[in-house]
Amino acid sequence: MISVAVPTADLRARVESRLGDARIVVWVPGDPPLPDPVDLLVLPYMIPAPELRKLAGMPVRVVQSQTLGYDGVAETLPAEMTYCNAVDVHEGSTAELVLALVLASLRGIPDAVNDARDGAWRHRRQPGLAGRRVLLIGVGGVGREVIRRIEPFDVRLDLVARTARAGVHGVADLPELLPTADVVVVAVPLGDETRGLVDAAFLAAMREGALLVNVARGPVVDTDALVAAVREGRVRAALDVTDPEPLPPGHPLWSLPGVIVTPHLGGDTDAMDTRVDRLVVEQVRRLRAGEPPANVVLGPPR
Amino acid sequence: MISVAVPTADLRARVESRLGDARIVVWVPGDPPLPDPVDLLVLPYMIPAPELRKLAGMPVRVVQSQTLGYDGVAETLPAEMTYCNAVDVHEGSTAELVLALVLASLRGIPDAVNDARDGAWRHRRQPGLAGRRVLLIGVGGVGREVIRRIEPFDVRLDLVARTARAGVHGVADLPELLPTADVVVVAVPLGDETRGLVDAAFLAAMREGALLVNVARGPVVDTDALVAAVREGRVRAALDVTDPEPLPPGHPLWSLPGVIVTPHLGGDTDAMDTRVDRLVVEQVRRLRAGEPPANVVLGPPR
Repeated sequence: MISVAVPTADLRARVESRLGDARIVVWVPGDPPLPDPVDLLVLPYMIPAPELRKLAGMPVRVVQSQTLGYDGVAETLPAEMTYCNAVDVHEGSTAELVLALVLASLRGIPDAVNDARDGAWRHRRQPGLAGRRVLLIGVGGVGREVIRRIEPFDVRLDLVARTARAGVHGVADLPELLPTADVVVVAVPLGDETRGLVDAAFLAAMREGALLVNVARGPVVDTDALVAAVREGRVRAALDVTDPEPLPPGHPLWSLPGVIVTPHLGGDTDAMDTRVDRLVVEQVRRLRAGEPPANVVLGPPR
Repeated sequence: MISVAVPTADLRARVESRLGDARIVVWVPGDPPLPDPVDLLVLPYMIPAPELRKLAGMPVRVVQSQTLGYDGVAETLPAEMTYCNAVDVHEGSTAELVLALVLASLRGIPDAVNDARDGAWRHRRQPGLAGRRVLLIGVGGVGREVIRRIEPFDVRLDLVARTARAGVHGVADLPELLPTADVVVVAVPLGDETRGLVDAAFLAAMREGALLVNVARGPVVDTDALVAAVREGRVRAALDVTDPEPLPPGHPLWSLPGVIVTPHLGGDTDAMDTRVDRLVVEQVRRLRAGEPPANVVLGPPR
């Protein structure tokens, strides 16, 4: 009999009718030790990687996260456990937020919200997205969903990935691409190669007044360099992730003009639940059938 | 020789090199009377229809507006003049704003802007657009551009026009469609049939918590009925046009939760200028060639 641990009673209620005779307990890292072996442990949504140290000694075989990114997990997950990320759960929703941020910034939604607080009808021309040149860095799951949604807006789209291929530039081309882009969207995983990718030199190469959108992870951007560039009015920014995160009260990014900060909303919409449920059901089916789980990104031996 | 009057020196500078030997003057209704006949008069952007009474007695043959809507023009334009609206200038930009408003509302951009003023990182789940049912009322130029842009967001889209046809419902189906929609977009011209279309009964038929988006004209919506419905928390709203417009200071729509008001930004982006220029150049070409102008919506005799 398959044994499953899930982080909330809500998730249990959503999936239990579809998991047959599986035994399901509600448990999160830090709770009293699991008394019995667990085949599949579903983590709380957006649990910080250091919390995974609390899994040490627990009888858990496969760990299923509810996020796509897994920076820091290799350093904190007990070595005997297999770790699966949440593929096909957040990509569409995160891409949707990219369009929300780009359109809000280019069409003046923050101005409108602030003007409403003053009860002031202030018509100003806004730049708009049509005809803009958009540079998308990262063409993985999120990037592909961004492409599909942004193409009908009549933009010129340039793609960048780690290595160049047909229709996709390599990161080595960034110095020549950055000065041409009106909008730069960063949708890469956080890793050694991407930490600090958007640094002072990157920002200095961007076109005057261009918009930087970060839906990846906060440390992909050098926050101090970004604050300096925004303060000088050289770039604008729309950030769903920050470094540090949460952004503390009084941080300059809260109040600099031309900056939108959303509190890491990327994947968190109503659409997420049914996608998580489907993934959990599929993982249980695989474990029951003796198949390897889907989306393994870390597995023993490490 | 063709004679053209334009409302700004900027527009003259943009088009004069492409108008050959045309004589171009800068003139707006209310200026001292035009001394010489004008073949094509380009109106100021968003001039109120009553201002067209000032054209009485002016030696103008064809009037070219910079807007798509022309409600009120038939009552105020001198009867001997031909009036052309601005087709293919604002449709894409207005559709872009529809997506900006829908995504901003469903992904919590106003909340984020207000939280930033407090320096507060407040993560709340937002509904998102994927999987929602969207009802688009009006499938003219703006509507078609909305369809193209919203389809990749994985919505279920229902279309409504004055008369039913393949794939498009007639307005008679609204009572059964409204309760099913999460988002209702109004993109119709203002006329006798559409004035007050969104009244108390329409709003009462909408699904609890659904979003009304108006990028048409303010009087398509009964403002008092909308205020009542929003105040009761039954619907949300994103409005680029209002009645009255501009919305006066202290109006309840400025401060009701769940409402975004933008100051009639629909068509006003950088993309507009090149499209206006192209239209003016084409109209001059036609007049010079003895062809009828494009986009005639009112012509003598009336």
